Amino acid sequence: MEAEFVAWLRTQRRPRPDVPIDLGDDDAAWWQLSRDASTVLTTDLIADGTHFELDRHRPDWIGRKAIAVNLSDMAAMAVEPQVALASVLFPRNLELATAQAIYRGMWELADEFGVAIIGGDTNCWSGRLVLSVTMLGTPTPRGVLRRQTAQVGDAIAVTGTLGGSLAEHHFTFQPRVREALALHQHLTLHAGMDITDGLAMDVSRLVESSGCGAELWLEQIPISDAAHQASRQSGRSALEHALGDGEDFELLVTLPPEALEQAESIAASGVTLTRVGTVIETPGLWQRQQHGPLIPLEVTGYLH
Amino acid sequence: MEAEFVAWLRTQRRPRPDVPIDLGDDDAAWWQLSRDASTVLTTDLIADGTHFELDRHRPDWIGRKAIAVNLSDMAAMAVEPQVALASVLFPRNLELATAQAIYRGMWELADEFGVAIIGGDTNCWSGRLVLSVTMLGTPTPRGVLRRQTAQVGDAIAVTGTLGGSLAEHHFTFQPRVREALALHQHLTLHAGMDITDGLAMDVSRLVESSGCGAELWLEQIPISDAAHQASRQSGRSALEHALGDGEDFELLVTLPPEALEQAESIAASGVTLTRVGTVIETPGLWQRQQHGPLIPLEVTGYLH
Repeated sequence: MEAEFVAWLRTQRRPRPDVPIDLGDDDAAWWQLSRDASTVLTTDLIADGTHFELDRHRPDWIGRKAIAVNLSDMAAMAVEPQVALASVLFPRNLELATAQAIYRGMWELADEFGVAIIGGDTNCWSGRLVLSVTMLGTPTPRGVLRRQTAQVGDAIAVTGTLGGSLAEHHFTFQPRVREALALHQHLTLHAGMDITDGLAMDVSRLVESSGCGAELWLEQIPISDAAHQASRQSGRSALEHALGDGEDFELLVTLPPEALEQAESIAASGVTLTRVGTVIETPGLWQRQQHGPLIPLEVTGYLH
Repeated sequence: MEAEFVAWLRTQRRPRPDVPIDLGDDDAAWWQLSRDASTVLTTDLIADGTHFELDRHRPDWIGRKAIAVNLSDMAAMAVEPQVALASVLFPRNLELATAQAIYRGMWELADEFGVAIIGGDTNCWSGRLVLSVTMLGTPTPRGVLRRQTAQVGDAIAVTGTLGGSLAEHHFTFQPRVREALALHQHLTLHAGMDITDGLAMDVSRLVESSGCGAELWLEQIPISDAAHQASRQSGRSALEHALGDGEDFELLVTLPPEALEQAESIAASGVTLTRVGTVIETPGLWQRQQHGPLIPLEVTGYLH
């Protein structure tokens, strides 16, 4: 049902010329309230058994994640997060201390990023834990970073290391808000998004949205320790984990290759940016090994 | 757990002098984005088995309700609803047609009130249907209608008729957005909110928030047909239903008694406003019958 529904939902998008909103392909919507003021809005809902397991995971980490995924959407568009609304459905038999720990996890990360949680709706019910967070942020003078504006010839680059997130990183990751703002301010970023469904999938989305293709340089992809660990158990390579695992919550950007050289100076302030490929004219996702030909790459990150 | 948690949550509210937000006691938060631009934000989450029954109720009504309760929060503060984000957790075995009907119910009411649904997050899971909607609106030049600004001597008035909402009205109600905007524009409203937990409870909240009390004129309370019908089955009086039943989603306002006289002209444009009491200095909730003494009134609407 889900895939069918999502496909149907896409066909139902109706432009609203009376409301100055730019939906684009992004994870967040950009609303121009007045000539001088605009805000970027995003919302994510996480649920027990789907995005976390209440009986296995730390409650403060669960609360933290509900905020963190929204912060990552703010980072994806290089906007300054400002306020959030948090709604929670608690299982009726939940202990008070657990509910409090969930909220403390939300507040701690929100405080760290200067986000005020200004409202919400809490209920108890007979079902499992659900957290729904909406976050609003303010674009910087540089404007909003979009998906659909990558240009042929751009370098494709990522922050951090990739893969194996499900071990722990999908709870403990640092949303790349500061990194996105620094990169967007100091470099000429053409396009960007956060990596939520695996590098291969998200690169292919970004370039498709921009009407281009991408070649990935597999030897250059920064593989996390967790991806190596996952590889030992899964029988798949660490590279495949780095390409295909979800919930990295790192940044994916495209920019002129010469701009990338300036990234060194920004790297000094804590942001590491690794080039992993190039935006090309040929649609689709491709891999290239040094001096080798272009070979198709599965968007799942599975390597033949 | 719920009451304990809510009490704890109240103690955790931390003012954020760095973020220009007025939390107040209202259902919605008021965020000043810039000198010229502000927005009012509200969020409501409804869940199967708690706010509706998926196997008993029309799916388009369920979707409609998710939007309607947020519109009612906009009405409560007399702001113009503009945009919404809608997240849905679908049960995994739900039929596509049901999912589509839920969304059509949301869109139809949103369209009717000029609200653009600009984003959201849909997932399937093993649990029951959950809908979480966040809505943003723009204050008019008259400013935002608040709860805590009722004045001693104010008339207490309500729109529509009250009670028996659970039969059908809690799905089919018309959020009082237009009425709130018209009343706020033409009359000197001192305070207002929407009636969600029963007239007695919500009047007592409004006056407590304003540091006053209220006397209600029980003979004047506009009782709905549905309250009379409910009375025939419940053994409680229709008046008790009008005082105590939840989910009326009518407007509750306070205003100078002389301003109320002008309400006639507004009534001609479709808004009926009935005076049901007076804001008094003595804290608490009281009932007064014509020429009779003040008698305490239970906030549950239960009459001794």
